Amino acid sequence: MRQRSQAFSLLVLAAAAAVRAAEPGTLSVDDMKAAQVLRDRVAAGSRAATWVRELTDRAGPRLAGSPGDRAAVAVALEMLQSLGFANVRAEKVTVQVWSRTAESGEITVPVLQKLALAAIGGSIATPDGGIEAEVIGVRSFDELEAKKDTLRGRIVFYDVPTERTKDGSGYGKSVVYRGSGASRAAKYGASGVLVRSIGTDDNRLPHTGALDYAAGEPRIPAAALSIPDADLLAHLLARGGPVRVRFALSCGAQPDSESANVIGEVPGRDRPGEIVVLGAHLDSWDLGRGAIDDGAGCGIVIEAARQIAALPRHPRRTVRVVLFANEENGLAGGRAYAAAHAAELPRHVAALEADSGTGRPLGLSWNAGPSAAPLFGQIAGLLGVLDAAALTTGGEGGADISRMLTAGVPLIGLSQDESTYFDFHHTANDTFDKIVPKDLDRAAAAAAVAGWCLAETAQPIERVPTENRRLPW
Amino acid sequence: MRQRSQAFSLLVLAAAAAVRAAEPGTLSVDDMKAAQVLRDRVAAGSRAATWVRELTDRAGPRLAGSPGDRAAVAVALEMLQSLGFANVRAEKVTVQVWSRTAESGEITVPVLQKLALAAIGGSIATPDGGIEAEVIGVRSFDELEAKKDTLRGRIVFYDVPTERTKDGSGYGKSVVYRGSGASRAAKYGASGVLVRSIGTDDNRLPHTGALDYAAGEPRIPAAALSIPDADLLAHLLARGGPVRVRFALSCGAQPDSESANVIGEVPGRDRPGEIVVLGAHLDSWDLGRGAIDDGAGCGIVIEAARQIAALPRHPRRTVRVVLFANEENGLAGGRAYAAAHAAELPRHVAALEADSGTGRPLGLSWNAGPSAAPLFGQIAGLLGVLDAAALTTGGEGGADISRMLTAGVPLIGLSQDESTYFDFHHTANDTFDKIVPKDLDRAAAAAAVAGWCLAETAQPIERVPTENRRLPW
Repeated sequence: MRQRSQAFSLLVLAAAAAVRAAEPGTLSVDDMKAAQVLRDRVAAGSRAATWVRELTDRAGPRLAGSPGDRAAVAVALEMLQSLGFANVRAEKVTVQVWSRTAESGEITVPVLQKLALAAIGGSIATPDGGIEAEVIGVRSFDELEAKKDTLRGRIVFYDVPTERTKDGSGYGKSVVYRGSGASRAAKYGASGVLVRSIGTDDNRLPHTGALDYAAGEPRIPAAALSIPDADLLAHLLARGGPVRVRFALSCGAQPDSESANVIGEVPGRDRPGEIVVLGAHLDSWDLGRGAIDDGAGCGIVIEAARQIAALPRHPRRTVRVVLFANEENGLAGGRAYAAAHAAELPRHVAALEADSGTGRPLGLSWNAGPSAAPLFGQIAGLLGVLDAAALTTGGEGGADISRMLTAGVPLIGLSQDESTYFDFHHTANDTFDKIVPKDLDRAAAAAAVAGWCLAETAQPIERVPTENRRLPW
Repeated sequence: MRQRSQAFSLLVLAAAAAVRAAEPGTLSVDDMKAAQVLRDRVAAGSRAATWVRELTDRAGPRLAGSPGDRAAVAVALEMLQSLGFANVRAEKVTVQVWSRTAESGEITVPVLQKLALAAIGGSIATPDGGIEAEVIGVRSFDELEAKKDTLRGRIVFYDVPTERTKDGSGYGKSVVYRGSGASRAAKYGASGVLVRSIGTDDNRLPHTGALDYAAGEPRIPAAALSIPDADLLAHLLARGGPVRVRFALSCGAQPDSESANVIGEVPGRDRPGEIVVLGAHLDSWDLGRGAIDDGAGCGIVIEAARQIAALPRHPRRTVRVVLFANEENGLAGGRAYAAAHAAELPRHVAALEADSGTGRPLGLSWNAGPSAAPLFGQIAGLLGVLDAAALTTGGEGGADISRMLTAGVPLIGLSQDESTYFDFHHTANDTFDKIVPKDLDRAAAAAAVAGWCLAETAQPIERVPTENRRLPW
């Protein structure tokens, strides 16, 4: 998953402070030089892809509570320990569990055509043998409302393409049909829902992801159609005449289980009790192997912290790698971290998340007090040679770290080129071969620079102003 | 399927004959002008993609003997009739039948990882519950031979990548592992075979296709692995230590069934008993919807013939569209056509096949008597503005028409850019969205020009010399 708030864009072309004695919240000339060395070393060839490979080879799919999830916790602990991080530990997280065993579907009228589909995460199962009904296609919730009197006993097909964009905003527009489509249709008596995959590819590989059943509405089964299958269904509907589909989903909620946030640290040399979190999520959807979502983010933050630890001296503050549990299906890891560390959050000086895949870095989104702007300007200046100097403000950095917003922790998101991210996101195609090591190196370099700078300045950056601490979701 | 012989390449830059009175086997200046008009009309925007859409929407997957195959015969008959072809008919073909119902597999040691795999066409089923064994990887038949003493009871994994090439020659090199790999491994006691998909993509969608069990060797189950899964398996093997896989295939031969070659004609104005065949195959593998293989070819030849029929006057000879049954799993349609029309083959002046997907045309391969060279030079000259003037000689034009070689029928293959063909070939991804209408228009234009020229010259081209009438396979 990857949630996005309404951040407004502001490109800052930074001018590095030309004075050796920096303001307390900014970087000195020596700091800038040290950060450049770090940046260049990571960008020239990191081991970020190696950590993704370990995770995807040795754990594979790792939906919260699954055997792969347990394997991932073990692999992550072993990796962080073997890389020499301090205070390596697994912090218990209770997670909700959902699993699929089988799914199938086909168009039955006007022609028998097998459909490539997958249960949307959280969906209830169909009755044995599945459901069969006439399909009503809609291209928006407005069209759903206009057709509300025709939906009883029908299967609603949400036919909304996802736009390919560099900043991932196309996903932000269409994902609501996956999340809310089932309950919106159930309200009018629909028996099931098919959703054009929230993705930008043309493969017969459906995109799963989570749905939210609204309280008070009947729960109906929901499946994502691969994009070529959505095209076929749309085309048959456009030809006119009734179109019927049968589909069967064997899936559902299981008893809660145990997972863990996996943590390792680079202790600060001066103020070890002040924390900069570098976060990503360890879990993944079940169809693929979680390489880009979010093995890539794990690789980025592990490598960034490893390279920070390898500097001649540690930064002032502690850099803490947190590989969060269960981002995809409930956000239990992010919630558990914020709860377990509530007393410590006032000493969390910043949290950064990497959860946008393998694309080259574009810059940072940041949400902090306004006086942090000069420091982010300096960081952007450092990232200019990576072509990653774009700054946006607002937002919550990433889903896992978002729960720290109410405590005022400054939140930073690593922005990456997401042009191809939604070709693979939440599909079986999310496998190691999709990783672009060179781009991952650059992303790790950007995360390393940001993490190091935030951990090194004489004074922490200004926290998120009280009026901005409300979560958008 | 698409078979290829060792054609040797010869690019002919044609100089159009500058004399109005052409040799009997070549085109006059007026002929050249008429062919240019035809070419430009088709290339500017044909309906070839529409015919592919009809077939893929209304029949879908159509492996010989399947319900989709029967639907395809009906759809094709209806299309040819509604387009006004003469003598539209279905000529009965008895076909062997093979079908799959389920397949699954996973790596069990050193890590549990689900595999995306598909039974190779013609494979026997595994016992219920599948087979599980240690995997022995080989990168060539030489390596298989070197490891022959280690294969008893093991699963052999043929790990041979397919090279991406414009002319499809990469496929020609690697397909032997799909075709012969099972029997070669069975000879040394292997219990099953996994083949890295013969394809050039990176999707979790395995490439099926036919295998040939050698007489005298045990028959063992064989499956194609998607390329990312082959990568994972190769990587785990490279890490060292035993790797085990379990896989289960539910598939197998069914009783013979009935299909048909579907035929329609543009009767010749002068010598209707002389025939130019424009052929493609109507059947497809079962995983996809047969858009590029060979819906595209059907669209090309139907459109080429339709546009020839729409000229102010028909060519001298009859242009016969033949949509062959069962190319993929036995070539029964091509064999049946050659047998049923044996008496007529001496009056088949040429046969052209389109079975290389949706790519833009590159030129023609031709196999005829040497005196045909000037005419093919003229045709290449006509195709120059389509950037499709490349001529190669030899070969059998296409699998379906190849059975006419022994009768000396000149055989022509439509060469197309196959750079992306093997990304989709024989996979679930072979769907209508992969069709590139503009390129298909150009391919139809090339086929129309070649077909018309061969049907129009005063004298038929020289037939294949006796010494060249032996089939290479």
